[in-house]
Formats: sequence, C-alpha cells, structure tokens
Amino acid sequence: MARGEFDLIAAITERLPATGPKVRVGSGDDAAVIEPGDGAAAVTVDAIVEGVHFTLPEFPPEAVGRKGLAATLSDLAAMAATAGEAYVVLGAPIEAEDETLLAIADGIAAVAAREGVSVAGGDLVAAPQIFLAATAVGYEHGAPLLTRAGARAGDLVGITGELGGAAAALGLLSGTKAEGISPERRDALLARQLDPRPRLAAGRALAEAGATSMIDLSDGLGADAGHIATASRRRIEIELDRVPLAEGVAEVDRRGGVVELAALGGEDFELLATLPPERLDEARSAVGAGGLELTEIGYVTDGEGVSLRLPGGGELEPVGFDQRRGSRSGSAGSGSGSSGAG
Amino acid sequence: MARGEFDLIAAITERLPATGPKVRVGSGDDAAVIEPGDGAAAVTVDAIVEGVHFTLPEFPPEAVGRKGLAATLSDLAAMAATAGEAYVVLGAPIEAEDETLLAIADGIAAVAAREGVSVAGGDLVAAPQIFLAATAVGYEHGAPLLTRAGARAGDLVGITGELGGAAAALGLLSGTKAEGISPERRDALLARQLDPRPRLAAGRALAEAGATSMIDLSDGLGADAGHIATASRRRIEIELDRVPLAEGVAEVDRRGGVVELAALGGEDFELLATLPPERLDEARSAVGAGGLELTEIGYVTDGEGVSLRLPGGGELEPVGFDQRRGSRSGSAGSGSGSSGAG
Repeated sequence: MARGEFDLIAAITERLPATGPKVRVGSGDDAAVIEPGDGAAAVTVDAIVEGVHFTLPEFPPEAVGRKGLAATLSDLAAMAATAGEAYVVLGAPIEAEDETLLAIADGIAAVAAREGVSVAGGDLVAAPQIFLAATAVGYEHGAPLLTRAGARAGDLVGITGELGGAAAALGLLSGTKAEGISPERRDALLARQLDPRPRLAAGRALAEAGATSMIDLSDGLGADAGHIATASRRRIEIELDRVPLAEGVAEVDRRGGVVELAALGGEDFELLATLPPERLDEARSAVGAGGLELTEIGYVTDGEGVSLRLPGGGELEPVGFDQRRGSRSGSAGSGSGSSGAG
Repeated sequence: MARGEFDLIAAITERLPATGPKVRVGSGDDAAVIEPGDGAAAVTVDAIVEGVHFTLPEFPPEAVGRKGLAATLSDLAAMAATAGEAYVVLGAPIEAEDETLLAIADGIAAVAAREGVSVAGGDLVAAPQIFLAATAVGYEHGAPLLTRAGARAGDLVGITGELGGAAAALGLLSGTKAEGISPERRDALLARQLDPRPRLAAGRALAEAGATSMIDLSDGLGADAGHIATASRRRIEIELDRVPLAEGVAEVDRRGGVVELAALGGEDFELLATLPPERLDEARSAVGAGGLELTEIGYVTDGEGVSLRLPGGGELEPVGFDQRRGSRSGSAGSGSGSSGAG
C-alpha cells in the first residue's frame, strides 16, 4: 500500500455513498445510526472470497465489489424489500495494491448508487486473501415482506429473466471456447457474472401482484426450487423446456448441455416466485413494467421435493451450486451457505 | 468435514439463539425479518481473521466466536445501544474439522445468550483461513444514542474498568513470561483476550447520566481518545498515572512498561466517555450499579489532539493498535479499520 492507512480508508470511504433517507449518522463512528421507521426490515449477509468465489485478474476488482454487494441485495429482492443500507467488510493482504482496493470500492459504489443503497458503515481488515462480506438492510414497502414458506398447491411457478447466463459466463472466464459468439453477446453473458443485477423492483412487483413465496436463484434453479419446496412443505414441478435461456448460452461449449446449465448453474440472481394462476397476468405486466419478462415454468402440488422434467422425457437431479465449497455439489433443499445458515 | 454440509449448517444453527423480541423470521430464509420499532438503531460490523487477529490453537476456537461477537457488541455499547440482533459470516477451509467450527459457534452462542442477542442470520463460506465477520444491530433505549462527536471543553474524561489486561494477555498467549503470577490472575488476564466483555449496561448508564461522547477502547487509549478529539474537534488531556491497571499487568514482563501497555495496548473493550464534571458522581454510581468502576483520567479542552502525560513528566506518543495490520502502528485519530471505515 503506497499511501498510509488513514489515506486509504479515507479514499475508500469517499467513494461510497454514505447518506440515505434513514441514515442519521453514517461512516466514521462506532456504529451507524439509522432511523428504520415503523415497518418491518429485512437483513441479510453474504460473502465472497478470493480463490473460492472468484480469482483475480480474470475477475476484475471492480467486479468483486459489484458482485459482492449485488449478491446481498438479491436476497433483499427475494424478500420484496426496498434496499436501504449496506455495511461492508473488506479483507485484503497488507501488500495489496491501493488501486485494487479502490477499484473494489468503485464497484461497490456503482451498485450502491444504481440501486439507491447507502453504504453506512464498514471495516477494512488484513487478511491473507481478498474477501468481501456485505450486510444489507431493506425495508417493507407496500406489500408485506415475502418468505420462502408460502407456496400453496395449485400455485404457478414463475421466474424473471433468463437463466444459464452466469454459468456460461463462468465458463468463458475460465477459458471455455464459444465458437461464433458475437462480441456483444459475449459481453452480455460476461455481465451476468461481473455485474449481476439484483431484481429489487421485480421482487416488489411480484409481492404486490400476490406472489405467495419467493427466492433468488443463487444456488441454481433445482436447488433453489428445493428451498421453496422445503420451506413451504409442498412439491414443485418444473418443465425445463419452458425455462428461457440467456442469449449466447447455447454458443458456449459446455459438456453439460444448455438445459443443465440453466437448471443447475447458480448465480443468475433472477427471482423464482409462486403465485395463484389468476394473478399471473397482473404479475407479468407488473414485472414487465420494469423491463423484465416473467415466465411460467411449472407449478406447485402437495407432496415434497422438486421435479425438473427434461424436454425429451426423464428428469434431471436437482443438484446445485454449493456456496461453501465454491463448486457444484449437494442436493436440493440443502440450504447450502444461505443467509439463514447461522 | 466429516458430516455433510447440510448437517453442519443445521448443527451450527441449532446452537445459536435465533429468536428475539424484534425477530419475526430468523435463520433459514433469504433474509431475516425484523420489526425494529419506532426508535433509532445502531448498526456496526467487525471482522477477525486467522493469522492476523488470532492464531489457533493458542487462541481456542470457542474464543474466536466469543471475541468475534463481543468486539462487535462493544461498538454498540459505545453507542449506548441495547443489543438486538447479530448476523455472522463464518469463513473456514473445507478441510476444517467440524469440531472447530462447532466450537466457534458455541463461543458465539455463549456471548449471544449472555448479552441477550439473537443471531438472526449468517453465512458459512469456504475460505483459505478461518474468519468471522459479525454485524450487530442495537436499539436506542432511554437516552439517545451517543456518538464520538459531542465532547465539550470542560468535560471530564472517564473510563470504565481497568486497562492493559488485553495487551498483557496477548503477551501471555505468545509466550511472554510472567514471574510469580498466580493462576487466578493469569486466568483473569487471559479472559481479557479470550472472553472480552462488551460494556453494554455501562454504556447505557453513562448516556443516561449525561455523557457527551463515548467510544470503546479497541485501538488503545491514545488512539481512541484521538478519535473522540477528532470527531468532537476538541483536545483531550490524559494523566496516565490515573489510569487503573488490570490486576496482573505489572507481573507480565513487557519491555514497554505497564503504563505504555495500558495506554497503547488495544482491545480492552472498556468505554471512554466525556461528561460534564457535575455529572461525575451520578455517572459513577450508575456504572457502579453494574459492578464496574468509572475512573476520571483527564479532561477536555479547546484545541485538538491528545496528550498522554507520563507520571514522571513528559508525554507518550498516542499511537495505537492498527486493526488492518494486526500490529501497533499508525497515529491517534487515524480511524484505523474502525466501523466507519466504509
């Protein structure tokens, strides 16, 4: 670190938007002082670690900041909360370049500004590798906060956007060839890893349209549908041929095939919601108002577990992305490393 | 990890107290749902990293959990907040023993239970070394939350308890000899590192007795008094011969001397408060009701900076414990790695 400790912290803090409607005291004291107001709040934590969830420089430092905050905000989206404040712990080796740490701060700042989040506090600590742990606080706004637990038999299953992009991008980042892919498509795919978008507006729209349960797709469609099934004590049936694929996924050469990529790849950060069939049109147009599609991909029945039906018949085993191991393993409903892990 | 991911997370979660008066939904969903109520909330984050802030096995895993949470709660104490909920991210190598991680959880649970904190969420992630990042949310209760910024010329400076114990304990843990120290004193000293106590009741008592600013002593007396001086735009004069030393500190052989240890050693997690002289008696008896002494060690004047007056004349340079480097360096007022770092 070329400059002193004090200057570095000041330079980082300067980059981050610290003020917000509920923030009475931001960075610089023992704690932030917040005036949360009357309603309910949603609080979640998430962490990404160098060498486990990303490697530099394939993953640029700014993307570390973007993804670290966006992944946490995605949990707030899944609760149908409005994003409020974030608190970030940045761990980094003493010998890390100032430029690297400032680029991470820039990534955090870009997402915070775009999503209207104040970074009201944080901590910079020495660590053998870079890690970013982010806590996000959101607030109830309009419809009540939505958990994983309310799915009912007869509900439809809908997802926002397209899947498979983040897994395909991970392939591109680690050198997988994608013959004939246009530079535009390649960039759009890469953005699914390097600049994931928390679906905050869509989450609130779905809750207001009557969604009964919701989750963000971080572990993979199969695993995350499993979390809903477990929490709601219902069974979820998904028709994989209805799942919209992100553009360019088919062009990324992966042995697993595009359907598997979409169904099992994690980190797309789209939302999966269950809702009564009669609310589908309203939900579609509410989500559509924010520029996203809502696609019906299955339904809820009595029973337990998840079925991922393959287009040609048969089923896919609903394994998912294991956050702790940083690789794909585990089984649906494992709750691997989720926010509620303790 | 002998058992599966799911079992380990369940075993960790089971150990942690997840319910609380404001917790509507605890662990297990995308986010916790909290009903914060009307008043202000204080939010702070802190992290400790293996090899930087502690080394195993000198530092037992349970103590990692205890210290990780207690250090964060100490920031709430410094705000005069009542502790509410905590959210913990535990990073650990895949090959870490289940017993180690469960012992860390036991340490977190013990502090949470003692201090009345619910652990309403968390995350378990793979990491090359063990780290623990804890977010704590506290609430205004009685007197308003207290920042570092309200010290006025003419105020007295008081501290709770005794200093130097944590630094001396660090010496003992790293093999420093302590000739003739009794086992009881040795254990009491070690507890200052392995089981630090956040001064939550004393913090609220001081605010109610009219304290004008407050901070917890984590970076060291000189550095932390500097944070108050900077935030309040006042000067702080401290008479080091008035600083009460923890029992046994004098018996721990340190080249720096006992006064230096007390003045410059960090992590005692006592509180330093400024208050009008006419409120001293009330503050003393309010703090005393919780079994702690409040000692007047100096005063606030117009001006800037900190003076640490040595008993024999002269002054000590107010350097402190640098959280980022995990060693002593930096200067008073550097705000090193504090909660407000960004």
